[in-house]
Amino acid sequence: MEKSVTNANGTTKGRDEETEESSKENNRNLALKTPKGARDHGPKAMAIRQRLLNQMIQVFRKHGAETIDTPVFELKQVLAGKYGEDAKLIYDLKDQGGELLALRYDLTVPFARYISMNNISTIKRYHIAKVYRRDNPQIMRGRYREFFQCDFDIAGTFDPMLPDAECIKVVCEILHDVGVGDFKVKLNHRKLLDGIFQACKVPPEMFHTVCSSIDKLDKIPWDAVRQEMIEQKGMKEETIDRIASYVTLHGGLELLNQLWEDEQLTRIPKACEALEDLQLLFQYCKLLQVANNISLDLSLARGLDYYTGIIFEAVLLSNDDNKLSVGSVAGGGRYDNLVGMFNPKRKQHVPCVGVSIGVERLFSIIEARSNDTMRTNETEVFVASAHKGLHLRRLEILNKLWTAGFKAEHSYRLNPKLLDQLQHCEELQIPYAIILGDDELARGIVKLREISSRQELEVSLDTLIEELHRRLYAS
Amino acid sequence: MEKSVTNANGTTKGRDEETEESSKENNRNLALKTPKGARDHGPKAMAIRQRLLNQMIQVFRKHGAETIDTPVFELKQVLAGKYGEDAKLIYDLKDQGGELLALRYDLTVPFARYISMNNISTIKRYHIAKVYRRDNPQIMRGRYREFFQCDFDIAGTFDPMLPDAECIKVVCEILHDVGVGDFKVKLNHRKLLDGIFQACKVPPEMFHTVCSSIDKLDKIPWDAVRQEMIEQKGMKEETIDRIASYVTLHGGLELLNQLWEDEQLTRIPKACEALEDLQLLFQYCKLLQVANNISLDLSLARGLDYYTGIIFEAVLLSNDDNKLSVGSVAGGGRYDNLVGMFNPKRKQHVPCVGVSIGVERLFSIIEARSNDTMRTNETEVFVASAHKGLHLRRLEILNKLWTAGFKAEHSYRLNPKLLDQLQHCEELQIPYAIILGDDELARGIVKLREISSRQELEVSLDTLIEELHRRLYAS
Repeated sequence: MEKSVTNANGTTKGRDEETEESSKENNRNLALKTPKGARDHGPKAMAIRQRLLNQMIQVFRKHGAETIDTPVFELKQVLAGKYGEDAKLIYDLKDQGGELLALRYDLTVPFARYISMNNISTIKRYHIAKVYRRDNPQIMRGRYREFFQCDFDIAGTFDPMLPDAECIKVVCEILHDVGVGDFKVKLNHRKLLDGIFQACKVPPEMFHTVCSSIDKLDKIPWDAVRQEMIEQKGMKEETIDRIASYVTLHGGLELLNQLWEDEQLTRIPKACEALEDLQLLFQYCKLLQVANNISLDLSLARGLDYYTGIIFEAVLLSNDDNKLSVGSVAGGGRYDNLVGMFNPKRKQHVPCVGVSIGVERLFSIIEARSNDTMRTNETEVFVASAHKGLHLRRLEILNKLWTAGFKAEHSYRLNPKLLDQLQHCEELQIPYAIILGDDELARGIVKLREISSRQELEVSLDTLIEELHRRLYAS
Repeated sequence: MEKSVTNANGTTKGRDEETEESSKENNRNLALKTPKGARDHGPKAMAIRQRLLNQMIQVFRKHGAETIDTPVFELKQVLAGKYGEDAKLIYDLKDQGGELLALRYDLTVPFARYISMNNISTIKRYHIAKVYRRDNPQIMRGRYREFFQCDFDIAGTFDPMLPDAECIKVVCEILHDVGVGDFKVKLNHRKLLDGIFQACKVPPEMFHTVCSSIDKLDKIPWDAVRQEMIEQKGMKEETIDRIASYVTLHGGLELLNQLWEDEQLTRIPKACEALEDLQLLFQYCKLLQVANNISLDLSLARGLDYYTGIIFEAVLLSNDDNKLSVGSVAGGGRYDNLVGMFNPKRKQHVPCVGVSIGVERLFSIIEARSNDTMRTNETEVFVASAHKGLHLRRLEILNKLWTAGFKAEHSYRLNPKLLDQLQHCEELQIPYAIILGDDELARGIVKLREISSRQELEVSLDTLIEELHRRLYAS
């Protein structure tokens, strides 16, 4: 039922061949598919998703977050200039007269727009909604063009690293509660990266493009990144080697101490600010008992334009033979200037820090290992007929059950076979069936069948509600 | 915070003036707004929405429904030919190379596409999601271009009126549970309308257009509809008067009996089929104890192309002085041929019946009467500092609370004022605050303050968790 029909054909330039074909065929028959990179979720997938999202919401609630909602589309100009090179992946709406609109690319920019528009100075909110990227699902395996994001952000002017540490705590709690095994939160700081580039004598105007190259290190090896920096970005080998000596470093507090002793670095004020932030963050994380989960990783760059301070990314560690490699499952950081971009005249300054949980990846891990016995509905009682002509009595009893608050169903056929009805109960794991028959009804009773044990007993119609209540809720 | 910024300016032809202006202004400043007809929902609005949606989901679950999800956009051809004249309101995506896409207009067509694509023969599902219509929010007061739909549908080949009656039961349960006062479910049947048109000697090719005119009767008076049929649709006055004698009728079983005696009508087989359906539906609704809520209303037409049988619409009855007029709050009907349209060659026949709850209208009614004391977060305990220098101790105790599963917060400032912290608790209605102070901590205790009563007592750090547990959960 949850068959996802994703186009296997992968070009994003020009119209896909597959679509050309299907549009030729269109006169004969409709192309019966979801759009490329989008998919339906059937009842089983939805049951898994809802359980997972509820676990996340519980954590957000535990940390005092409220929730907000924003439209699926924004004015094009709201999204403009926020995503660097990724802007080409934004879905535009057709100009049908009126405003120029685009589908949201993430939940962060709409959040910043919301804060600015409503003149909010402090808010801690979560937002779970779909975002849209005209990515190439062929290249990025397991990634879709329409996918859920699940964001938690803290906006407001506060003392350093207190909200940042809580975001990391939230990530750790979620990954723990969801139960996806060991994980690590890689940390870095945009100002530390800038400091490193400055220490390595990268010209300031190149910081941005070097950052983009470094960001690819989790997908391609150092040699390829090095090659790109030499050939495409025209950097000196000497500079690159200096950068390499930093971005290959990762570790805990000891690495931080090592960096504090690096005079090349500590004479750059920006780098010192970053090191101070990181030191504080390590201290707070220790108190919040997540210090063992964090690791400073100088190769972490995170591509988005808007980050200004701490950046982090949670990755799963494959400590078993599980072949499913999922990589990053959450990412975030501090973006202190995004809100201000929406109204430069007003000089509104609302620093923010937040995290986006990679729910789609978590879904697919949990989906892959979920067994088929998961229920997709919650029906507690099925009202069955033992023979023909009982549908009016069924409706009467059903109504009694619904009125009493039970989750109850029956067959929409006038004269269903008893075997079919019981089989349905077994397939859907409905715990109880009430079986109606003329003989029993004449005596004012019905049969109550426990589906799992197949045991039946006679229950008076007068005490049926109590009996079910006792069996279903009292334990 | 929930200020909705809807464009008051209303033309759908050509670019809106307001946008033109703001695009001129754009070089100076960004237009800080949501797209026309779309709005944000702040924490308070979301709290109301989530409570309402949960009530609805409970009813759907009570009736054994599963849930599914479909993409926000569909191939354009999937939506084509399903919405009659309303198709002009569909939002198209820009052709950026690839497939031609459009935002979904309702949840029914994607549901039928899902059934057809996955070869499903039976499913009972609910789906809560946003849909998109380039309507004119100016004309249709209180309506937005992006809005939630909340659908419950039963697909499958069953005996007549059993699923249909359950849909009406679901509507009545929801409107009862939500608590929006008295309501009525108006009923009609597409085949009865066709029968009436035939009996009134309307040419068959005119059925559709007459139906569209009749559909306007809840918005404009009969004289205006009559005028439209004469002037725009060129119908004879005689025919119109005959139609009028029917479409002004409404009532219960007695009206049904009266129609059974109408020989003009009963010699038309389609009309008899409809009357039989309606008779059965009245019988079932009586058993489900919703007969008092339903009323046959021959002026009910419902515009959408895909209905084939029973159609219905729930309206609120203003029995008090409430000035808020909201009209229709749910609508639905039977659409037996929609699934088959997706794959005519396969001759797949999956009859469906369903209802769409007008959640946005219910939201606005409940929002209008909700008081300002509603909580938007669920924090149970706030950890406060009585004086400077306690932030590390706060983090430690917070972590203890989080680990024990409490919803807890603190200030993200190193040295917040006690008064500010307590005021925050009162504003957010957080039930308890733990107040840390050096003197108390030295003795291994903290102050526990009940925010509503402002009573404080000393609690040992060792028994804090138990004490909070007892106070918050044991009752």
